[in-house]
Amino acid sequence: MKDKNFVKEITNIDDDFAKWYTDIVIKAGLADYTDTKGCIAIKPYGYEIWENIQKYIDNEFKKVNIKNTYFPLLIPENLLQKEKDHVKGFAPEVAWVTQGGEEKLEERLCIRPTSETIISTMYSKWLNSWRDLPFLYNQWCNVLRWEKETRPFLRSREFLWQEGHTIHETAKEAQERTLQMLDIYDDVVQNLLAIPTIKGIKTEKEKFAGADSTYTIETMMYDGKALQTATSHYFGQNFSIPFNIKFKNRKEEEEYAYQTSWGISTRLIGGIIMAHGDNRGLKIPPKIAPIQIVIVPIAMHKENVKEKSEELYNVLNTNYRTYLDTRDQYTPGYKFNDWEMKGVPIRIEIGPRDIENNECIIVRRDTNEKIVTKIDKIVETIKNTLEDIHKNMYNQCKKRLEEKTTTAYNLDEFINKMNENQGFIKAMWCGSEECENKIKELTSAKSRCLPFNQEKISDTCVCCGKKADKLVIWGRQY
Amino acid sequence: MKDKNFVKEITNIDDDFAKWYTDIVIKAGLADYTDTKGCIAIKPYGYEIWENIQKYIDNEFKKVNIKNTYFPLLIPENLLQKEKDHVKGFAPEVAWVTQGGEEKLEERLCIRPTSETIISTMYSKWLNSWRDLPFLYNQWCNVLRWEKETRPFLRSREFLWQEGHTIHETAKEAQERTLQMLDIYDDVVQNLLAIPTIKGIKTEKEKFAGADSTYTIETMMYDGKALQTATSHYFGQNFSIPFNIKFKNRKEEEEYAYQTSWGISTRLIGGIIMAHGDNRGLKIPPKIAPIQIVIVPIAMHKENVKEKSEELYNVLNTNYRTYLDTRDQYTPGYKFNDWEMKGVPIRIEIGPRDIENNECIIVRRDTNEKIVTKIDKIVETIKNTLEDIHKNMYNQCKKRLEEKTTTAYNLDEFINKMNENQGFIKAMWCGSEECENKIKELTSAKSRCLPFNQEKISDTCVCCGKKADKLVIWGRQY
Repeated sequence: MKDKNFVKEITNIDDDFAKWYTDIVIKAGLADYTDTKGCIAIKPYGYEIWENIQKYIDNEFKKVNIKNTYFPLLIPENLLQKEKDHVKGFAPEVAWVTQGGEEKLEERLCIRPTSETIISTMYSKWLNSWRDLPFLYNQWCNVLRWEKETRPFLRSREFLWQEGHTIHETAKEAQERTLQMLDIYDDVVQNLLAIPTIKGIKTEKEKFAGADSTYTIETMMYDGKALQTATSHYFGQNFSIPFNIKFKNRKEEEEYAYQTSWGISTRLIGGIIMAHGDNRGLKIPPKIAPIQIVIVPIAMHKENVKEKSEELYNVLNTNYRTYLDTRDQYTPGYKFNDWEMKGVPIRIEIGPRDIENNECIIVRRDTNEKIVTKIDKIVETIKNTLEDIHKNMYNQCKKRLEEKTTTAYNLDEFINKMNENQGFIKAMWCGSEECENKIKELTSAKSRCLPFNQEKISDTCVCCGKKADKLVIWGRQY
Repeated sequence: MKDKNFVKEITNIDDDFAKWYTDIVIKAGLADYTDTKGCIAIKPYGYEIWENIQKYIDNEFKKVNIKNTYFPLLIPENLLQKEKDHVKGFAPEVAWVTQGGEEKLEERLCIRPTSETIISTMYSKWLNSWRDLPFLYNQWCNVLRWEKETRPFLRSREFLWQEGHTIHETAKEAQERTLQMLDIYDDVVQNLLAIPTIKGIKTEKEKFAGADSTYTIETMMYDGKALQTATSHYFGQNFSIPFNIKFKNRKEEEEYAYQTSWGISTRLIGGIIMAHGDNRGLKIPPKIAPIQIVIVPIAMHKENVKEKSEELYNVLNTNYRTYLDTRDQYTPGYKFNDWEMKGVPIRIEIGPRDIENNECIIVRRDTNEKIVTKIDKIVETIKNTLEDIHKNMYNQCKKRLEEKTTTAYNLDEFINKMNENQGFIKAMWCGSEECENKIKELTSAKSRCLPFNQEKISDTCVCCGKKADKLVIWGRQY
């Protein structure tokens, strides 16, 4: 009975997905609401997921010569104004500092929503010659965007991210870097988070404020909605001209540098929840799970149970993040539910009878399957099982992505499909913003991207019927 | 000539130490001033020092069960008000957000100067039973204090740090944790930064706003002034009462939790500069140096030089952070000065003649000593040399600390010694704030701490002459 109540505490995933989501955030102990409206506190269990992602990405960055730096949190208003599209995009959603100590400020300072402006100012100061290039800098930091509607991880006013900013001698080199970083993100999302991706380029309407082009890693969540997990931008000289980032080129002429920026954030944690979770709670992909294996001793008071559990713990913890749950105020049943809620990939049950047979029971969080294993085979079994869990979680998402991606050839079909089966729609597009706006208005779906993998499924725009040669993926979004 | 000019660009350390300091910050490429007044941009070379420190500390924290978390940057004004000493200490130096997007805020939000208040609010929400305790949480983040006079790293309006916040079932456990964390800091400063320390407790006047007691790690800089490198605070129930952090204890009674907090910041980088630097530039302690060894090939165009340098690089880079300087626009002499300025512990010179003899030359940054080494002995020589550099840097500081620490038995002696030989003064103190204030007024020196290592050098207060049983270390400070 107690066990049932535990699961009852969360909303059914198919009844109210939004409510299910926030239930999971709280009950799994990832984060909590705070007295600062729109801002969350990330608890140890949530933060450890972020640390695991961070460690992997930071290492990948270092392999491609990215260096970490740190730039100021506060940006003087006049800097934000310098690039016109950028200010239009970001000014409405920044927080303003108007008072410092006892002093009313002469010029307002905004809390960075992103750091192109302040970083460009410094690049302008530091750059002299083509010999100095490229600058390949990144920072791990907090940013703030004054969102009206907020949701933990997905749309917090404050969030944590990394923002990479590079400048280059040539447009080609900058463009290559933009795509190289996109590939790192693609690897992170697929191989760490176990979520299949669609790589593509954003339309003019959806690109980053100030960018020449924005590339994106799009993913699909449980409910068929899209989550943009990472973006990489090519700026051309859009910032380097107003910010005067120039250098003496090889011909001894002055030239403006070519620039990129790219970022990934704690939003990914929202993606993990929504891509993998179910009615029993969270499912964390094995590679980033704070606890990869939990050992739950059964009948702890009986002979040998504690000792054997500890032995097992010591064997496994050398290679895997393992937790031995010896809490004596809870029943094993309660613990099973608790760790399922927290999404631990593997649970090991070990009791007196198992010990007699030199066995233990492995329970997979992804399939709920129970595997009886000889204790002397445990290391190998765990290794294979964790790999298989990753693959299976990936494939489950892949299957959903395929099932929920349909095609549409005209507007009626588009509207019906989006309403009946919320998911992605592949459709041809003429390239006009009017058609994007109309589709948005009628279906709440936006263009996700022009996927790199272009197919020609028809000759005419799904919206206006005019000639079209671009395939676009459309979907409702987080 | 060119080489001499290079060094001429920095102010002489004995002419103007403050100017020398900022010259080093800029010329060694650690950081730069920005358009945001009082805030710096930390460049890759500076940030990498911080990353190396961070990695070590974070690992030490994890060994003693500290978990990382993240709490909001912005704190509603009413929370800051709750603990009366705390608000008095911090309110005058916070920055206020008064506008979010288009909306004027009903309640101002301050940018965290430190996070006791927001974290205590969450602890109050999360804590129920003694079984939940302890909470051993830390965050790595930025904080902001609206200082009037700023200096890179030492006193930036924004700086990076970690702040640990723990709550406990008993006062004893909390006190032990306070000292345990102080010991970790002491290890960091001595064994990573190669700076000798004085551990002690702050006087009432100098303790953290809201603390019951503040423990400190004090160090001495080149000019004899003190730098407080880390502090660890025991709060008792000072925050848990106003913030209502209570739990059901083992007797099923409600009790307020016992709290600590402790932090270390990018200020340490300022400490490294000022403890070790000289007229040739920075000296970075080997364990945290972004580049531990730089290889400068001599006569690069000559046969075998590049190849041999690369071989050497490959051998050393597997164990040490090594850089091979193949820039062809600079002379070796320029490079020597450049890397000395940047404080790289070991330089290796390798040219045609060395290669003939199967040798290379190792130059120590700390002593300028040249060691001719057989290439097949290089790994061992480097290992020993780096260890010796660390020891020597530590001992140099230790010698200075001892030479510049004197004793005083009355006020005249105190004033004369402080003016003649700026350094630390050991003197007895009666315990009254009046004497502290008077000494400050007359000498600009403050009490650094009551060192753990108490001696009784006399019976009477150095200031008022009344009975005194406390030994205090005094000094001017950064």
